[in-house]
Amino acid sequence: MAAPTINDIRQAAERIRPYARRTPVLTCAGLDRQVAAHVFLKCENLQKVGAFKFRGACNAVFSLPESALSRGVVTHSSGNHAQALALAARMRGIPAYIVMPRTAPAVKKAAVAGYGGIITFCEPTLEARQSMQEQVIAETRATPIHPYNNYQVIAGQGAAALELLQEIPDLDVILAPVGGGGLLSGASVAATELSPGIRVIGAEPEGADDAFRSLAAGRILPSVNPRTIADGLLTSLGDLTFPIIRERVEQIVTVSEAAIVAAMKFIWERAKIIIEPSAAVPVGVLWERKIDLTGLRVGVILSGGNVDLDRLPWQSIKERVG
Amino acid sequence: MAAPTINDIRQAAERIRPYARRTPVLTCAGLDRQVAAHVFLKCENLQKVGAFKFRGACNAVFSLPESALSRGVVTHSSGNHAQALALAARMRGIPAYIVMPRTAPAVKKAAVAGYGGIITFCEPTLEARQSMQEQVIAETRATPIHPYNNYQVIAGQGAAALELLQEIPDLDVILAPVGGGGLLSGASVAATELSPGIRVIGAEPEGADDAFRSLAAGRILPSVNPRTIADGLLTSLGDLTFPIIRERVEQIVTVSEAAIVAAMKFIWERAKIIIEPSAAVPVGVLWERKIDLTGLRVGVILSGGNVDLDRLPWQSIKERVG
Repeated sequence: MAAPTINDIRQAAERIRPYARRTPVLTCAGLDRQVAAHVFLKCENLQKVGAFKFRGACNAVFSLPESALSRGVVTHSSGNHAQALALAARMRGIPAYIVMPRTAPAVKKAAVAGYGGIITFCEPTLEARQSMQEQVIAETRATPIHPYNNYQVIAGQGAAALELLQEIPDLDVILAPVGGGGLLSGASVAATELSPGIRVIGAEPEGADDAFRSLAAGRILPSVNPRTIADGLLTSLGDLTFPIIRERVEQIVTVSEAAIVAAMKFIWERAKIIIEPSAAVPVGVLWERKIDLTGLRVGVILSGGNVDLDRLPWQSIKERVG
Repeated sequence: MAAPTINDIRQAAERIRPYARRTPVLTCAGLDRQVAAHVFLKCENLQKVGAFKFRGACNAVFSLPESALSRGVVTHSSGNHAQALALAARMRGIPAYIVMPRTAPAVKKAAVAGYGGIITFCEPTLEARQSMQEQVIAETRATPIHPYNNYQVIAGQGAAALELLQEIPDLDVILAPVGGGGLLSGASVAATELSPGIRVIGAEPEGADDAFRSLAAGRILPSVNPRTIADGLLTSLGDLTFPIIRERVEQIVTVSEAAIVAAMKFIWERAKIIIEPSAAVPVGVLWERKIDLTGLRVGVILSGGNVDLDRLPWQSIKERVG
């Protein structure tokens, strides 16, 4: 498969329609006043497994050729992608092998197991995860599904922006968070092909600004020891996502930890929906006003809503980011 | 105006359409598994001012005759109705006089003022609130809008159930919380007239069970010193809501404080939306399974989402209800 086009995204949207949710687009008058823009929130926090990740995993799983089906899929992840892949595989009736560090929180292990994922534990290093995944592939011949550096995954994530623009066609700007770049690259393809002239802007924590630095340098500069409350955005761009983002994304704007927490709490309080810190990062762009979006119609992709309700960032921000 | 019919509710829905939100109906596979039913959540927590109260206040304000407009409206409330009435009045460009106890939380005073309400403070007793409201009426000749014992308010609240049944016509049951009974009475008219044979069930905290006791006794038995975390449900039935509920509601089911908190947290965690304790009470009916709704299609009206995010019940349940 070549880099996804709008047609690939349309096909992905069609393919996942029976399984994924068409999430609502919400508005919030209080937010509009606060940030002096017209904001349309695409609520992927209300997606299956609580994150846009389900779209990409679902598209990848349902794109598998018949011949590969019985061998299943494999990934190494302890985050939303692991749950998403486990659920998508269960929906297609095939095994999902999930490699997780044995130090992952119990709640994440339970979630993956709850969706029927077959967990293999490994030591908590990237090397151990990769070598354990190789071992699982050697044993099972399962197809690896990377969380973002995979064209089917990118096309699936793009379906969120496609739906947003079908519902609100006249957006000036789309804001999406960027970690590995799967969501941002998919959204940028959908948006720039559907709506020429639209501005696509990536939102990244200051403490994990590899995409910002990579675009400035013109080559991938991976994060070194990234640090942010937005734990879904710790990963670095991949060699499939970077070229798409470089071509189609206007700029990456970095956001402070304080703005991430303030924006997150404001969305909870005023829009009455649960978003995780990573989803608050694009709202933080509006909040901090490092760039001027006054009066514009801004679509924001809220990436997910998986948080620990016993440990909220505004109750312990000092310990967490200090 | 006589007791509202389905036509009054249809007219109310039409009247408030330009101002109120058509709230989404969400489903949650995890909730369905947990309670063994097919649950459809009508998200009035996503309504303007964060509560269904806006519908009734809006219908009442936009039903006012021209001759009464300039004198404005008045109510005594420190809760969601006060904010709802202030916003509806601002939308119609008329004054809203809100009588509030001077001991009300600062955040509630600020919210009412933020919607343009003209606040008069009084001592924190029901007598003081009523006599202060009489005084305001004597001075302004404003029209009093009771939070629930008012047919226009009841018809407006009924529009939430009307929308729910338009979207999901084949419900077996509708569950709604009951405090003063405005929402439950309006929902019961809409549901039983649109869908003969549907069961309408009221959900009430054990610690504020006046509706349960009143239905059993066949007459209004007001709450004495009610005690519950569901602070929107402390009020007692009125002489307009009681007869409607007696005629059209199958039964009232009471819910324990523990079930209210557990159901609230589950909805936050799994449905990714913020609901206030009062909105968790009908979910608590499903949670506790005091009545058997196994396998049924159950519409739940989530009444609101106004909570203090710095003080969550599962972080301090012992101090709050002990």
